[in-house]
Amino acid sequence: MPGMVKLGQMERERMSEKRTRRGGEGRIGIRDVARDAGVSVATVSRTLAGDGYPVSDEARRKVLESVKKLNFVPNDLARGLTQSRTNTVGVIVPNLVNLYYARVVIGVEEIAAQNGISIIFCNTNHNIAKREQDINLLLQKRVDGIIICGSGTDYESGSGRLANGNAPFVVLGRNERLDYPSVHADNFRAGYRATQHLVDLGHRQFLFLGGPEKWPDGSDRIAGFKACLAENDIEFQQDMLLFGDFAEENAYQRVLHLGRNFPATAVLAGNDRIALGGMAAVVDLGLRIPDDVAFVGFDNIATSHYLRPSLTTMDMPARLIGAEGMRVLLRIIAGETVASRTVFEADLLVRQSSGGTRLQA
Amino acid sequence: MPGMVKLGQMERERMSEKRTRRGGEGRIGIRDVARDAGVSVATVSRTLAGDGYPVSDEARRKVLESVKKLNFVPNDLARGLTQSRTNTVGVIVPNLVNLYYARVVIGVEEIAAQNGISIIFCNTNHNIAKREQDINLLLQKRVDGIIICGSGTDYESGSGRLANGNAPFVVLGRNERLDYPSVHADNFRAGYRATQHLVDLGHRQFLFLGGPEKWPDGSDRIAGFKACLAENDIEFQQDMLLFGDFAEENAYQRVLHLGRNFPATAVLAGNDRIALGGMAAVVDLGLRIPDDVAFVGFDNIATSHYLRPSLTTMDMPARLIGAEGMRVLLRIIAGETVASRTVFEADLLVRQSSGGTRLQA
Repeated sequence: MPGMVKLGQMERERMSEKRTRRGGEGRIGIRDVARDAGVSVATVSRTLAGDGYPVSDEARRKVLESVKKLNFVPNDLARGLTQSRTNTVGVIVPNLVNLYYARVVIGVEEIAAQNGISIIFCNTNHNIAKREQDINLLLQKRVDGIIICGSGTDYESGSGRLANGNAPFVVLGRNERLDYPSVHADNFRAGYRATQHLVDLGHRQFLFLGGPEKWPDGSDRIAGFKACLAENDIEFQQDMLLFGDFAEENAYQRVLHLGRNFPATAVLAGNDRIALGGMAAVVDLGLRIPDDVAFVGFDNIATSHYLRPSLTTMDMPARLIGAEGMRVLLRIIAGETVASRTVFEADLLVRQSSGGTRLQA
Repeated sequence: MPGMVKLGQMERERMSEKRTRRGGEGRIGIRDVARDAGVSVATVSRTLAGDGYPVSDEARRKVLESVKKLNFVPNDLARGLTQSRTNTVGVIVPNLVNLYYARVVIGVEEIAAQNGISIIFCNTNHNIAKREQDINLLLQKRVDGIIICGSGTDYESGSGRLANGNAPFVVLGRNERLDYPSVHADNFRAGYRATQHLVDLGHRQFLFLGGPEKWPDGSDRIAGFKACLAENDIEFQQDMLLFGDFAEENAYQRVLHLGRNFPATAVLAGNDRIALGGMAAVVDLGLRIPDDVAFVGFDNIATSHYLRPSLTTMDMPARLIGAEGMRVLLRIIAGETVASRTVFEADLLVRQSSGGTRLQA
């Protein structure tokens, strides 16, 4: 366990459903291309490697058609032939500007460094088409495996290339519909615990300042919020939910729009960046934190500890998820059996913005 | 000019010294390896591509020795032979956790997307040895060029492979000793202007809460600070400088250590993360911002606008530097002549932490 991040108790759900993935099985190989094109393996090799040997236009055309038809990744050629590893892993990040992913990356790199693995990153900016391009790019760059960060709602288009065995991969996020090895946080329980903290402080009027409505981590946090309200006999109202994006400015505007006659005494922010924007707006409305409005965030990005008031937040185990994700990927690459899901719990960090520190003192 | 970042006036110094770099010139090629090893080009190709043809152990040994001796990058083979481009550019970032680089990356990606270029990133964590590994990794992954972010003090070891023409590259940072195409901000002038802003507000007692002592951008900012003090007949004292690292916690501890009997009425923080830590410590000392201590930072990371008090800062043109860096790299790849240096100026963003907004009101 890395010593630099205080994670407290953690939890691993080892799902009963096990799976084995081995590097070579099911991969479309150069021999498949040769068979399909009706040419020799050497001709495929010459066409794709461009190694200076002459290839007839007709043979070249047939090879390229078969490559396309079979979804064969050309630059995988050398590896396919030599069975050698590149000791490179690709990591696809939805947004480099989000400090949550920066913490995930630290965990990934920690384990990579211990195992002599180099990392190359791609940044999708939350664009699904870009993510598909990045997956193809990483396969062309002959990575040994891919880590996909983020709980996107649809990996199906990408899954074609990945599930075909072109490369082992791990998803750092939840997607229960699909049969991928994944590592993620228990966001339902994090939402529940954050809410219970505010209920314990006497709050009954809530606002959940969410991120995008279709964000799975956010949906889990909201489900936990609702479950906690129900458990405490507080009626959930639809107007307790305000969706938006992940950026500070959007949250700032949403909260400012609510005005000084604020509809809640406690705000759960979908993540810490949303909390940052929301808290600025509350201050600008002339309200006090936590006396008039208490705040709890999710993530524990580096900034949160240094805000004044400092931000009470659920310390999502980003670094631990990154580290475990890399460990799982290395096991898959080595042909070992891995758990289909590994789930870590988040800790509540009580700081000034919820007023919880004063109660404890 | 991208419309999304407000940059105000900007400045380009086109240095008189021009240079031309073309893709093929001076590159160690497969023919050089073959000549040195005393074998055929085909044998080198077969050895390195592992394309299934038999190569004798003796020939293989000679080829690998020559590859090592000549610093030839094996996986560059296919490109060297076919002269084809991969439309991939590598970007080396010192620290993905620093939101300054996140802004640089946005600019890089903007221009890359417009030109159909895919980006792969490497994260060095400010480790020079890691940066050298990353340069080699990117060359092996057959990128068309490399963008190196950060004004590290020593690119000499990396320059061996790069200056040999293995790949075009651009440095996003200042290094006047070395003959590299570079794009960077005018940090001297930024330091000068930040100081003048505080002098204009009546301050005479300063603290410069720096980053690492050997950080070139920081040194330039401090030089501008000193020049501005001299211009205003304020004597510079060595104890006005406190060096440290880039992280919030280090700045927090340095400032807390100074105690409530604070030695300055105005703090220039080496960057916004340092300002964030320093401001938290000032608040925890029971002092008011800006009434007791005014703060100015550098960078304008996303957080700065949402702090309360919001952070007055020099808006370093990170996105513009990233965009121009990619444009320069594309010109080099295309064989065009580029300026050896392109310099952009930073704008002063007056917010609450310096008290300047009240003066203007």
